[in-house]
Amino acid sequence: MASTDSSNRGNIEVLKAVNDDHGGVIVELKAPMDPGAFSMCLKASLLEWRNQGIKGVWIKLPIELAGLVQHIVEEGFWYHHAEPSYLMLVHWIPATEHTIPVNATHRVGVGAFVVNDRKEILVVQEKSGTSRGLGFWKIPTGVINQGEDIFAGVVREVKEETGIDTEFVEVLAFRQSHSSFFEKSDLFFLCMLHPLSFDIQKQESEIEVAQWMPIEKYAAEPLVQRHEFSKHVLAVGLAKLENTYAGFSPVCVQSSFVDQQSYIYLNGRDLEHPQATSL
Amino acid sequence: MASTDSSNRGNIEVLKAVNDDHGGVIVELKAPMDPGAFSMCLKASLLEWRNQGIKGVWIKLPIELAGLVQHIVEEGFWYHHAEPSYLMLVHWIPATEHTIPVNATHRVGVGAFVVNDRKEILVVQEKSGTSRGLGFWKIPTGVINQGEDIFAGVVREVKEETGIDTEFVEVLAFRQSHSSFFEKSDLFFLCMLHPLSFDIQKQESEIEVAQWMPIEKYAAEPLVQRHEFSKHVLAVGLAKLENTYAGFSPVCVQSSFVDQQSYIYLNGRDLEHPQATSL
Repeated sequence: MASTDSSNRGNIEVLKAVNDDHGGVIVELKAPMDPGAFSMCLKASLLEWRNQGIKGVWIKLPIELAGLVQHIVEEGFWYHHAEPSYLMLVHWIPATEHTIPVNATHRVGVGAFVVNDRKEILVVQEKSGTSRGLGFWKIPTGVINQGEDIFAGVVREVKEETGIDTEFVEVLAFRQSHSSFFEKSDLFFLCMLHPLSFDIQKQESEIEVAQWMPIEKYAAEPLVQRHEFSKHVLAVGLAKLENTYAGFSPVCVQSSFVDQQSYIYLNGRDLEHPQATSL
Repeated sequence: MASTDSSNRGNIEVLKAVNDDHGGVIVELKAPMDPGAFSMCLKASLLEWRNQGIKGVWIKLPIELAGLVQHIVEEGFWYHHAEPSYLMLVHWIPATEHTIPVNATHRVGVGAFVVNDRKEILVVQEKSGTSRGLGFWKIPTGVINQGEDIFAGVVREVKEETGIDTEFVEVLAFRQSHSSFFEKSDLFFLCMLHPLSFDIQKQESEIEVAQWMPIEKYAAEPLVQRHEFSKHVLAVGLAKLENTYAGFSPVCVQSSFVDQQSYIYLNGRDLEHPQATSL
């Protein structure tokens, strides 16, 4: 068998693998293999890894090799996660209960509370979704892309849906909801943004109509009045406008163990200007 | 073809499907089908759906039918997501750019800041992970299960890792990091919990050692001093203990459009007791 994905150890073909941080191995298949030959190779690899005391075995299979999926499943693997171009399968060798980490469980959405100097709030009606056709005015919302920071994603979504340039101010609140998309959950971050431009250019594909609406008029909308979440959005947004509310703002942190930056969102006002509460 | 997954319309077999909220259809395959017959059936279905103006086509394929994956991929489907027992594939019929929502992108982790009446903080050393074997004391952390609320998951994790019963107080801060697990991102919620019991019983599988440590001793640990994120954790945790810091606490909200409850986390102190900031 002449494959770049396997190495010959005596008469046993073992798939090329790299170790992970948890006593397991990761195999990234790239070259096409004959399914029969692949199955033999996988069986031999599992024997070898068992002897080595390997625990979890990951196989990353590009979509071009979809014909091998059933052969991997036949060896006791299950699906861990999938992205458009690949499927990740996993298997646990020991007899003990597995400690394979769960798949990503949440989509991350953002909503933008944007109010201009004339006390008008930026609102839209969407072309699709559960509220379409109801005349329901809502703040611009969207979904964070893979690898995108919350503070960047919300500015991008407002620009895409309404054409308005903004700068990020603060996360005012967040909501966790379940079973929002198949079995997946949703984390929605409500953000205050400061508008930097004022001429609306709505996104044709997703937005029915967009406008700056006087905030009192928005607060009095019957559908907003009846929508519990919108009322919370208004309450924290108005409190923030009056400067009596502190949300969370991002601080860049460097990890010590892996070479990576991330952002921690915290109540910076209370850390900088500590004040005893009236509670 | 005698399958519960298809219906015969004249001489065209069309797969049984239900409409989604976005002009698409969802097919849930359950019964095994001969791969060749299935391919013909899928081709006919796609023609029919194209005529009907259907946009997105979802196929949920149980792992037992893994042999059909390649036949679905051959018709232009790609992977959307996967869970242990099934693979979800998707295809976009129109010539326009697709508006298929992204897969779940984030795992949700929690960390618990638990301090007892003797000003001791609950800390652990883990058996695996990037900090194993370094003598690094950290607060108990874990990953939220599918469908689990943050305030419930963090209490469960503390109980599992240390045996300590707690009650949830507040989310003090959160961190978003990328590429933390394959290409997936991570949202980590730092929570303040109030301890309800004191006798530690550590989890054998994951925890090397667990203890109540005087908080000044913890703050002086060299590895904590050098770990930027731990310093932020300490700063907000200590500010909260001194009652000068407001995080986010959960409020139950009912959705108006779908029959579902969720929790919004917000700065309840500032809403109840508004006070002008010193900024």
